[in-house]
Order: sequence, then structure tokens, then C-alpha cells
Amino acid sequence: MDPQSAAARHVAVIAGHLNCPSPSAAAPLALAACLHYDPPELSENPPAFDLAALRRVLDGHDLEARDWLFRLMEESPLFCPRRRGDRTFVAPDYNQTKEQQRAVTMRRIEYLLRRGVFEGWVTGSGPEAELRKLAFFECIAIYDHSLSIKLGVTYFLWGGAIRFFGTKRHHDKWLKATEDYQVKGCFAMTELGHGSNVRGIETIAIYDTNTGEFVINTPCESAQKYWIGGAANHATHTIIFSQLLINGTNQGIHAFVAQIRDADGNVCPNVRIADCGHKIGLNGVDNGRIWFDNLRVPRENLLNSVADVLPDGQYVSSIKDKDKRFAAFMAPLTFGRVNIAATAVYISKVALAITVRYALTRRAFSISANGPEVLLLDYPSHQWRILPLIAKTCAMSSAANYLKRLYVKRTPETNKSIHIYSSSLKATLTWHNMRALQECRKACGGQGLKTENRIGILNGEYDVQSTFEGDNNVLMQQVSKALLAEYLAAEKMKSPFNGLGLEHMNDPCPIIPANLTSCTIRSIKFQLDLLCLRERDLLGRYASEVSQYQAQGESKQKAVLLSHQLADELARAFTERTILQTFADDEVMQSAGPLKELLGLLRSMYALICVEEDASFLRYGYLSLESAAAVRKEVMKLCGDLRPHALSVVSSFGIPDAFLSPIAFDWIQANSWASLSNE
Amino acid sequence: MDPQSAAARHVAVIAGHLNCPSPSAAAPLALAACLHYDPPELSENPPAFDLAALRRVLDGHDLEARDWLFRLMEESPLFCPRRRGDRTFVAPDYNQTKEQQRAVTMRRIEYLLRRGVFEGWVTGSGPEAELRKLAFFECIAIYDHSLSIKLGVTYFLWGGAIRFFGTKRHHDKWLKATEDYQVKGCFAMTELGHGSNVRGIETIAIYDTNTGEFVINTPCESAQKYWIGGAANHATHTIIFSQLLINGTNQGIHAFVAQIRDADGNVCPNVRIADCGHKIGLNGVDNGRIWFDNLRVPRENLLNSVADVLPDGQYVSSIKDKDKRFAAFMAPLTFGRVNIAATAVYISKVALAITVRYALTRRAFSISANGPEVLLLDYPSHQWRILPLIAKTCAMSSAANYLKRLYVKRTPETNKSIHIYSSSLKATLTWHNMRALQECRKACGGQGLKTENRIGILNGEYDVQSTFEGDNNVLMQQVSKALLAEYLAAEKMKSPFNGLGLEHMNDPCPIIPANLTSCTIRSIKFQLDLLCLRERDLLGRYASEVSQYQAQGESKQKAVLLSHQLADELARAFTERTILQTFADDEVMQSAGPLKELLGLLRSMYALICVEEDASFLRYGYLSLESAAAVRKEVMKLCGDLRPHALSVVSSFGIPDAFLSPIAFDWIQANSWASLSNE
Repeated sequence: MDPQSAAARHVAVIAGHLNCPSPSAAAPLALAACLHYDPPELSENPPAFDLAALRRVLDGHDLEARDWLFRLMEESPLFCPRRRGDRTFVAPDYNQTKEQQRAVTMRRIEYLLRRGVFEGWVTGSGPEAELRKLAFFECIAIYDHSLSIKLGVTYFLWGGAIRFFGTKRHHDKWLKATEDYQVKGCFAMTELGHGSNVRGIETIAIYDTNTGEFVINTPCESAQKYWIGGAANHATHTIIFSQLLINGTNQGIHAFVAQIRDADGNVCPNVRIADCGHKIGLNGVDNGRIWFDNLRVPRENLLNSVADVLPDGQYVSSIKDKDKRFAAFMAPLTFGRVNIAATAVYISKVALAITVRYALTRRAFSISANGPEVLLLDYPSHQWRILPLIAKTCAMSSAANYLKRLYVKRTPETNKSIHIYSSSLKATLTWHNMRALQECRKACGGQGLKTENRIGILNGEYDVQSTFEGDNNVLMQQVSKALLAEYLAAEKMKSPFNGLGLEHMNDPCPIIPANLTSCTIRSIKFQLDLLCLRERDLLGRYASEVSQYQAQGESKQKAVLLSHQLADELARAFTERTILQTFADDEVMQSAGPLKELLGLLRSMYALICVEEDASFLRYGYLSLESAAAVRKEVMKLCGDLRPHALSVVSSFGIPDAFLSPIAFDWIQANSWASLSNE
Repeated sequence: MDPQSAAARHVAVIAGHLNCPSPSAAAPLALAACLHYDPPELSENPPAFDLAALRRVLDGHDLEARDWLFRLMEESPLFCPRRRGDRTFVAPDYNQTKEQQRAVTMRRIEYLLRRGVFEGWVTGSGPEAELRKLAFFECIAIYDHSLSIKLGVTYFLWGGAIRFFGTKRHHDKWLKATEDYQVKGCFAMTELGHGSNVRGIETIAIYDTNTGEFVINTPCESAQKYWIGGAANHATHTIIFSQLLINGTNQGIHAFVAQIRDADGNVCPNVRIADCGHKIGLNGVDNGRIWFDNLRVPRENLLNSVADVLPDGQYVSSIKDKDKRFAAFMAPLTFGRVNIAATAVYISKVALAITVRYALTRRAFSISANGPEVLLLDYPSHQWRILPLIAKTCAMSSAANYLKRLYVKRTPETNKSIHIYSSSLKATLTWHNMRALQECRKACGGQGLKTENRIGILNGEYDVQSTFEGDNNVLMQQVSKALLAEYLAAEKMKSPFNGLGLEHMNDPCPIIPANLTSCTIRSIKFQLDLLCLRERDLLGRYASEVSQYQAQGESKQKAVLLSHQLADELARAFTERTILQTFADDEVMQSAGPLKELLGLLRSMYALICVEEDASFLRYGYLSLESAAAVRKEVMKLCGDLRPHALSVVSSFGIPDAFLSPIAFDWIQANSWASLSNE
């Protein structure tokens, strides 16, 4: 298109229209003036609180580092800056084959590497460095999930395995090379036949005393390594998870290092690799499948921090119990869950910022004859769809920050809590993210489907979150099982609950007042009492149902499976109470003022929408029908109270404009004929 | 890859493993035998009922025609047959740019055209022909949504507009040419600034008495036609929806025909066209944007079945009321909603058939030490996720068939019912479809993300369903508004309810027994009573809330907006009661025997899961807490009762194996190294 002549033609068209032979000069009243775009910053009230202060609460850490990284991405042509109207947006070009997406993802990694983004990611240590790395991951993820996952595989899964399962010889050999992206490692754990149930993998490693090597085999097709990120095209090395056979005894799963490609990128002998094919998202990641055919790796390649094989074939381990040894090998996956949970919240922020901005500039239908059309966000139903999601996102930011801090300061004593919190928050925050993306996509109508508007494509790209690094449903069942263990232990030992925020179980059962005033409903005490009441009761019910099934002759395992509904309800109750508590803690830390008031509104919205959306409050009688009606009414009032702050809150999310999308700004101009020349 | 040498190498690998120097011959007990695939047909009990008979109930019509069309698609290389293991699957290659997808979609249309699939689609008439056309659309849609939508735009939207808004001169000129796909029409209604609120579109047509032409203009950027399927690349003609100005008076929206491309595919003068860009799905459809610059079309191109402009510029219409005239123009969209609703159920069937077959062959975790791993579908939680979706899909098949029959036999008297049913079922069935796709994708774990396994990609491709041809939320609000009108009319006239299945409102309020036995809970009477009770009560509550807001001084419109929650609950209650009724009608028609028993189980599951999932039964006290607990327990029992029939039911869905996916069959073989050579 020639923009010059296009513009000229446009002028001619308008002129022609004005000079139309028919009497359009006397424009009829029923024809509205043309739509125009009002920036929400001008049409909305100015912020009632300090936006930067809210961002500090929500981001929690490393704000400057985030902004630095955002700018790095905005500056590079590799990140596909595109001009729409008078703005530039960065986003991947998803109208590409998987081969193209993979190639450009590699080039983006190389760029970030050159700019020093990954410095200290493998060799560094300490809480500060780890938090900064997590912040960087969140920022990279809002550009493209493939980029983040491709990095995560090498830096966290491979790098983490070398670091945590390996010892000095492995560290010396591979850590620095990994940080410099000279060694591109992958992580071959999952097999075609075994995903969630890692313990059942079928790959076999046998020690050959004669040569001092392990011989690794894929004994059958179901044992092929599957979904291995990086394997299809780029990985040079891999961690192989395998059963380890020593003198005919299976010592369980161990991790070995093997090179799978030579310096020229050719697949090594005794290794076969195939592509996992096209996926609904993450096509920038080259997921592959691997078969091992008598692959020999030196004895020293066993990652031996918890167990080793001596040259003569003797097996030694500091952890005698196989289950505990297995658990030790799973520990690095925790980082993944922490990262996924934090990222999920950040992605929700992108979708909500776009959706709110659009809803403050898009109108539909008028509610009086010839009246102006109504802004989407002024519809009570639209507020009800979107504002609770904003409150949840803010509350979950606090929870993610709590989890990150707990993780980076981990000690052997906190391992259990971290495991439970990371499982419950990984599941809950990713479910929230998927729901927010889906609701936002629909709230933006057809525009939500356009790739350039980001929301819809993020939905496909992030769908994987709910099943990878632990299927969400399985994780939540594990959370309830862990809570049941706490319950049974406390009962058996007659000892008080300690940890996981369960101390409230030691107190008398909270009493929920019968006549709820608005003031009561909005108090932290009422909200926490109500959520604690639910958790306490569900834990008791769950324990009782499991023991009833056992009394009927079912095994413990089977009894737990049969009680899946209460397990789901309990895990949700535990997680929502945890989130509310972390959010309330952040609120309490603020000094009195408009920000604290806003946090109070958001906290109330979070707590009450949890009540509104979970039928268990009615099902088990935690609330009377009258009280439930009062809660619903209060949510509606909160919608009205939060509506004036919607723009301010999403502006505090800290997502740069360039990472939002055209519908978040002047979408009429961005779609204009004139702007075509910039595309 | 050389398959021969690959196979040879594989043999060598296994031999090598057997001859391994380490003493693996004495295989340790803890190492399970390799996984192998058991076809569910062999591992499950044989069907307890006649599969073909259930298919006749669910498909409702045109079974042979469907099979014929399925075979046509399977036969053509254009439909990308791909060998996986010893089976062939057909599915589009989604690892293609939008340009490639558009090109191949056109070639598929040309193939189906040559094979006579579209015969009578525009020129034919009568209920039989219409039902057959709807059946064909469902079949085409399970291959590819783009193919179905691209056809729908030309054959239904354009073709329907010519047929219903046009008169003989339009029919003679365009109907046959459309059926032969010589004329490729599109349907330019939506604009950048107006989607749901069509009435607000800004395109202007003015009649020029001097030349006997309409002059059509896009007066501003927000008036550009947007999302116009077919416009970007292929359409030769379009219907233009425009405000019609006659002597300075806006006569409201009218439809005009214009040619937009010449025989060589060049865009006509006074028309500008741009691409809508990449989308999260439907990339085989060339959605475009159109601007009109003093485009002149002859007076005869006004589609004049309800209104006309005489040569001297005089405006004449058989419908004086502008609102009714507008409604007349919207009527052809009803076909779209009927089609979308029916298609949504069919897509759910694809996902459920794949998911059930996979869940009957995929195992994970064992529940006893060294015991075999458990089939996914033997987990109570997995049954709870999947089996209710199967029951809903079956029940919704009956509802879709009811709607289709009502539509093809439409009379002026049934128009209102069709409008309400098509709105409520379009929304409800597409929501169900999205939920089924999402649940199935997760129930298949990572495999659900692989494009070749269909479920995940169908999710992206069908996401559009919930907002196009009427945003689901808006449609459901309209349903409740229509029910409110019925209620107010009955109240005012003191006349009984008549139509829409609301006759139960004339009876005394049903009494729900206090002590529910399993037998009561599974009875049609109890289930219908309970769903009618909810509908009746919610209708009363809604009317009362709206009138309370009015009493407080709100306008009727505003009062309705404020009552959005009750409106949502009511529309859901109306729709679910309707679905239950149509499904029960199909069941009652069967003679006693195993099929009727199965239908009874499915109907109970449908009714009870509706109760379980809608908190309004508790919120408004339709059920006591004890009764709600009894219902939940019964759903759990029904899971056990339906589990043995799961394979049989999905086998009755009538989806050919080639339209399912590798994980529905021997997925170990399909993923084997040897099968790579076939890909």
C-alpha cells in the first residue's frame, strides 16, 4: 500500500462525502457523531493513591531490574517492534511455523546473553540473586512463554540438576559453561508412558564394572523420553533420569549426564532423537523425544550428591530410604513451581491491564433512547466479571511474593512448607491465570481473538501451565493429603498445629455473627474467621470421610481417592486462606492513607468473591442463606467502590505500554487506514 | 530417517540390552514389564445396548449423509491424511502461516464443490434439505472450523441475506451463482466501533435521485467494516449493512449488494480492503476490513423484501416500525446460531471420544505397593471430570435436534420461540463445548497440547464461538428479558403461560420431598420438578428485583442491568430445564430395554450435575443441605454406573476413527521410532 496516496484518497473520500449530491448537509438527528477515542487517563479521575507505591507492594522486589530488562527487549529488532497508530508494541510474530519460532527464540536468547541478562543465573547464589532471577523470568514470560521456558529448561532444570544433584566435579565442568550458554542442557525425565508418575519411568541404567561406565537403554517404546524441551534441535547435553540397576537390584531413579549432540550439532551415536511436533502453544520450544541405545556414560557422570556407585560397582547412598532419595531428586522441580506461580500472576496482569483499558474506551448500547452508548466497564455485569479478577490478581501477587521469599531463604526445616505452598499456589495461580485470560478474551469480544491484542494468544501459550511441573489436580490432592497427615499427627500426638498457617486450628472455632453489617463483612477478622472456619471444618470432614472408607475395608490409598471431592474443597480452602493472609499482611504493613484503603477494598473483594464462588459455604452451612445474600450484595457494592480505581490499579501493575496491545490505547487510530503503512 | 536401518538398530539395541555384561538377566522384581497397549474394545465389556440405535438418537437425522461426507474428506489428499502407527488420521496442518491455511481452505472448498456437497444449499428448500445442510455443516466443522466458517459466510450469511432480504431480481441474479461458488459473497455488518450493538453502525447510504444509485460511505475510521470473513482475499461480492438516509431522514439499517472484486480478483474502485491479521484460530478464514468511498450501487441492489426506495427517492416499507424492520434484518442470523449450537455439541463429542479412549488405555500411579498402575478412567476423580460431560453432551444433542427441527419447520408463530431457544442454546452449548475441550485437554495431560491430538487445537479454533453471532452473555441476558416479558404479560393479562415450556408455571408449585431416596432422585418427575421449581422461583425473583429497582427510580433498562445476576441464573435455569425436557422426551420415546436404561442413567446424570454445579439450589433453598448431599452422593453412584458404558457411549457418537487422533488408539505404536518413517 502506498500510504501517501492512501491518505490523499482518504481526504478525497471525506471531501466527496461532504459534497455528496444528496442533502446530507442537514444531517439527521438520529445519526450519531462519529466515534472518537478518549484516553482513559483523561476521562477517568486521577489516581487516588500513589501508583508507584502500589507497584512496590505488588511486584515485591527488583522493580528497577525489571524495567531494565523490559527496555532491553523493547530496544531490539529481534523482539519484533511493530508500529500501530503512534505507538510501538513488542510481541512475537505467531504467524510463523514452529521451525521459524524456534529459530527466532534462539536468537533472542543469544541477544539477552550478550546483554548480560543471565549473569549469575547458574553460578550466583543468595536470596537477592535468586529473587532477581525470578523477576527476570516474569518479565521474559510476558514477552513470550517459549522464550521463558526454553531458558528455564537450560538454566533451572539442567542447571539446577547439575547444581543440586551434582558435586564439585560436575559443577566445575558444567556450571560456568551453562551460564555462558555454551552447554545447552536439557532435562530428560518424562517418558511417553510416564509423566505425573515419574517413579514408574522405564529407562534403565546398568553399571559395567569392566569399563567403569553406565550403560543406558530405552528398553521399549513407552520408555522413550518425551516432551524434552530443547531436545529436538538445540540441546548439546541432557540429564537422563533412569532406574539404576546394581547387581540386579533396582536402586530407583537416578540422574546421569550425557552429551547428545557434538559441536556441529549432530546427534551423538547411540542416541536417537525425534520431534514432538506442533503444539497449541510454546512452538518456540523444540520439544523432542529421545531413545538411548546402549549409551555409555562414564561413572563420573552420575550426579552423586545423594548416592554414588564406586568404581567396583558398590552402591552407596547417604539416604537409605528409596522414597526419600526419590524426593531428593524431585526437589529442584520446586523452583519451577515457584516460578510458574509467580509468572501466572504476571500474565494475568497483562490481560487485565489490556481489558480494563479497553473497557474504559469501548462503548456498546445505550440505556436510554438516543442516549450515549455505555462504557463496557460501566455495566454492572462487566464490573462483576473483571473487578474480582483484579482483586484476586493483587492478592495472589502477595502470595507469590511470600512464596518466593520463603523459597529463596529455604532451609531444611522449610522444605515441607515450600513443597506444600508451591504445589497449592502453582495450581491455584495458574488456574486463576487461565480463567482471567479466558474472561478477558471474551470481555474484549472479537478483539480478544486477534493475536496482536495478546490476550487470546497468551491463553494458548499458557494452557500448558495447568499440567506441567505437576498436574494441578494431582498437586491439589497432594496438598490435602499433606494437610491430612498434619491433622492425624496433631490428633495422635495431642500436639498443637504448627506451621502452614494452621495454628488457627488450635484456637476455639470462630463464631460467625448472625446479622452481618457491611462493616463486619469488610473486616479482616470476619473474612479470616470465615475462611479459617471453612478450612478447619473441611479438614475434619476429610479426615472423617477417609477414615470411614477405611472402616469399610478400603485401603488408605483407595479411601483417599474416593474422598477426592472433599480433598479438592479442602485444598482450595487452605490456599485461599493462605492467600488472604499474605495479602492482609501486606495491607497491615502500610501506614494509614489512600493506598491502605484501596488495599482494604481489594482484600475485601478477594475474600468475598472466594465466598461467593465456593458453594461449600452454603453446602456445609458456614453461612446462612441471609448471610450469603449479604455477602453477594457486598461484592456488588465493592464493584462500585473499586470501579473508580480500576485504571489506577492496572496502571500499577508495572507492565510497560509496549507490552500491552493496540486495544489498550487508541484502537481507532491503530486500525486506521493511514496506520496500515506502518505495519 | 531410514526406517529399515532404524528398525534394525532397534533390534540390535534390544539384543544388546539382553546381552548386557551386567547381570540384568536376573531381572529385579521391582522393574515392571514394559507398558503395552490394550485396545479398549478388548479390555472393556462389550456394549450393553445397540450402539447404532444410540447414534440415531444423538445424531437425530441424516446419518448416511454424514458418513458419505466423512468419507469424501477421508479420501482426498487435500484433507492431509497422515499415517500414525497402522492408522490414518485426517486433520489440517496447523503448522502453517495464515496465508497457507487460507489457500488450502479454498482448495478444500473447491473439492467439496466438485463432489456435489453444496447442491441445493442455496436454491433448495424444505425441512429435509435444511436438516441435511445442517448435518453437513456439523461434519465439516469437526474437520476444521475455518472450512465451516468460510462456507457459512458465503452460503448462509450472504446466501441467506440474498434469499431472505432480497426479492426475485436478486434471487435470479445471485442464488444459483452463489450455490456454484461463482459468486463468493461476504457479509459486511460488523464495524470496528460496533459489534454486538449492530444498530449503532455508522456506514451511510444516501440515495442519489439523479443517477438512481445509492452512494455508500465509510464516514470515519470506526465505521470501517471489521471481521468480514472472506473480505481479505477471496470475496467477490458483499452485503453492506448501512444506515439509509432519505431526504435527511435516517430510515435505519438496510442491506445493499455490492461487488468488491473484479473477475481477476482486483479490488473494485471506491473500495479499500485490509487484512484483520493473525488470530488465535480460524486462520483459514480471511477476515478483512472494508472502507467505502462514495461507492455507487444501483437502486436495484437494495435488498428490498421489507423496504424499498422508489426511483424518485420515495421510501416505502411494509414494516412501519423501525425496531421491527431492524429485527427482520437480523432474522437470518438465527440460522447461524442454530448451526453454532449444533456444531458445538459435535465438537464436544470429538474431544470426549478421544479423551475416554485415552483414559481407558493410559495408566498412572498404583494404589498398592507394586500393584499395577490404575487406568485414568478408574480414578473416581477422573470419572467425575469426564462422565458428567458425556451426559451433558448427550442431553444437549437432544436439545440441538429439537432446535433444528423447530427451525426448519419455522412459521411466523414460532419465530419468537426460535429466537429465544437459539439464543439460550447457542450460549449454553458453546460454553459447554469450551468447558469440555478444556477439561479434556487437561485430562489428557501433555498429549492434550499436541496439535495432532486435536483437543487442544479445537479449543483455540472454537474459542470464537462464545462471542460471535451474539456474545453469549448478551444472549443470555436477552433470554431473561424475554422471559420477564412473558411473566409480565401473563400477570397483566391474567392469562396462563403458553409456549417456551413455561406451562409448568400455571401449575401449583412442585413440592420437593424431604427425604430423598436414590429411586426418587433418579426419577424424571423429581428432576423436572426441581428444575421447574428453580426456574419458577428465579423468574419471580427476577421480576421482583427489576420492579424494586424501578420503584427506587431506576429506568427499566437500568433496572435490568442491575439485576444481571438473577438474569444469568434465570437464563441458565430456563435452558437447563429445556435441555432436560428434550432429553427426557427422547428417552420416553424408546421402548423398554438396555438403551432406554442407559438413557435414563445419562438423563439422571445430566439433571443431577446441573443441580450439583449450580449453587442457586442451596442459595435460594430449593434443596435442603441433606438433600444436596444426597444428590452429590447420587452423582458419585452414577459415575460408577456409567463407567462401564463410557466406551460404548462415545462409540455411538458416530465420529469416524480417522477424525479422532493417535492417542485414541495405540499411542505407543503411533509414537514408535518405526512409525516416524510414515509421518
